[in-house]
Amino acid sequence: MSDSVLAVDIGGTKFAAALVGPDGDVRTARRVATPPGGDAHTLWKALDGLISSVVGETSPTGVGIGCGGPMTWPDGAVSPLNMPGWRAFPLRERLAARFPGVPVRIHNDAVCVAAAEHWRGAGAGSANMLGMVVSTGVGGGLILGGRLIDGGTGNAGHIGHVVVDPDGPACGCGGRGCLEAVARGPGLAAWAVEQGWVPGRACGTASGAPHGTAERSGGARGREAAAYVEATAATGRQLALDAAAGDGIALAAMRRAGRAVGLAVASAAHLCDLDVVTIGGGLSQAGPLLFEPLEEALRAHVRLEFARRVRVVPAALGQDAGLVGAAALILAADRYWSPGS
Amino acid sequence: MSDSVLAVDIGGTKFAAALVGPDGDVRTARRVATPPGGDAHTLWKALDGLISSVVGETSPTGVGIGCGGPMTWPDGAVSPLNMPGWRAFPLRERLAARFPGVPVRIHNDAVCVAAAEHWRGAGAGSANMLGMVVSTGVGGGLILGGRLIDGGTGNAGHIGHVVVDPDGPACGCGGRGCLEAVARGPGLAAWAVEQGWVPGRACGTASGAPHGTAERSGGARGREAAAYVEATAATGRQLALDAAAGDGIALAAMRRAGRAVGLAVASAAHLCDLDVVTIGGGLSQAGPLLFEPLEEALRAHVRLEFARRVRVVPAALGQDAGLVGAAALILAADRYWSPGS
Repeated sequence: MSDSVLAVDIGGTKFAAALVGPDGDVRTARRVATPPGGDAHTLWKALDGLISSVVGETSPTGVGIGCGGPMTWPDGAVSPLNMPGWRAFPLRERLAARFPGVPVRIHNDAVCVAAAEHWRGAGAGSANMLGMVVSTGVGGGLILGGRLIDGGTGNAGHIGHVVVDPDGPACGCGGRGCLEAVARGPGLAAWAVEQGWVPGRACGTASGAPHGTAERSGGARGREAAAYVEATAATGRQLALDAAAGDGIALAAMRRAGRAVGLAVASAAHLCDLDVVTIGGGLSQAGPLLFEPLEEALRAHVRLEFARRVRVVPAALGQDAGLVGAAALILAADRYWSPGS
Repeated sequence: MSDSVLAVDIGGTKFAAALVGPDGDVRTARRVATPPGGDAHTLWKALDGLISSVVGETSPTGVGIGCGGPMTWPDGAVSPLNMPGWRAFPLRERLAARFPGVPVRIHNDAVCVAAAEHWRGAGAGSANMLGMVVSTGVGGGLILGGRLIDGGTGNAGHIGHVVVDPDGPACGCGGRGCLEAVARGPGLAAWAVEQGWVPGRACGTASGAPHGTAERSGGARGREAAAYVEATAATGRQLALDAAAGDGIALAAMRRAGRAVGLAVASAAHLCDLDVVTIGGGLSQAGPLLFEPLEEALRAHVRLEFARRVRVVPAALGQDAGLVGAAALILAADRYWSPGS
């Protein structure tokens, strides 16, 4: 048996797998595009093939899996929102059957990212940390007292559904004014299009002009904007690029996102007495354009001494974070794995 | 040595002390009014006398203390907001000197209430609980994975400073739109007075009519309302009575408070994946007048399956909660005490 674990990171756009050494060092890592529209079998075959190519003759000492939610936990029957082919798919069970005799553990992908940033990333050395991913969705994981917090059903860390604007935009969860509704890339891009944003106009990196308007409105125009965002390059990443190039509306969108994240972090810092918050994901690439309004909103709302000490830092591990965190479920189980098996 | 611990509960209006048996049974309990405006020595003498009268010839096996914040923790130098006579007063150290050879432990009073409700109250049997106190302030404590969560400085559980209205009223903490700013009794009463509330008009339980107005305003009139609240019977408790008697403005105030609490609970449920939230304190006496709007706001904002399962229940232990929770720091230390000593 080797000294490596197999780490698997399942996302809507790609599958990743790697052998990870005891210190969290990512060895053989491979990625494939998630088969678009794949049914359960197609998705599984793609994953199975990827894993075979990574594992080769190695016998991993365990398997850690990060996967988009929702899922039953710790059983690991997964129904990732953006992978309709898997509904209550017994992912953990399938991998346990493929790797008998070793622990096979699964957690939410954003929880794995948080565990990774705490174990080997920007939150290392802190005992009380929120790890956030601000991207197509807004997710997170919570470490308190030096240990990963699962909550009653493995869903602790859902910072994306902390309410930042009670009368704000409708959220995909069915609620209203969640951080995710405001700050997720597509939501932010839709808002910017409503304000008249023309993606790429500022820096020539994309084309296609919307029938934009600076007048804010909801209803039909909001849906049009969302459809436009779906169909074009009007993504959160493009928004960050345009903001960097000085586009006024894109800058306003970054302020909107930063403020919303800052408010949610303020609430989390008060509730959990946090040392540090790490922020990764596509939108965090905007750097100061996101972090400055974030800090401004945060500092306006954390005034008690204990809350003021919270530090907000960019995540450190990049695209490997999900793999490192999945591996941590096995390699640093004393901190990141609480259930029985 | 007896089988009892000494529990001490230090508040702005009263000091309480009790001997508490191994199962959390409150034996000899006594209360005295907090000496108003007392200096450090006066406050200590009052507490010392109270403790002597409770302890008698008993040798407690430990001492648990709940005290209003802020404090250094776990050292226990206390600076309770509403007791100016104690600033960095070494309360834990004084009691440790008085009871040598046994553990002497301190925590925030609201944290003690949460521990009590989890150990012996409305949250018993749950592993993931937020215990709230909605009264002159709004405080709380957090139990996750069956253990009391301290956070980095012992301040986890500050649900009162979760942001429920980013552009809302200024908060005593220096921030804005905190739950406490909206829902604390005096804040709520001031809001009601601004709306034209005449305390006791609905049920004849108080007298004195303000120069009320149904027009909402801030600034000078807001300060006038706050001063009026200070000087009269315009308390949260009176507001609850008037709401029960059908006063329209008092009812609106209860809806305002309930909605704010519901929003904060929604955020906490998402972040911490809670099983149950217990709500105690003066305002919770309003019963359905508070809990119905609370549930309405909560249910509008928790839509994901894991979050929908959160239950909100009235606290069960009443005025003994603080004592029971202080005792739990000693008697159930495996769950409620994490630091070294």
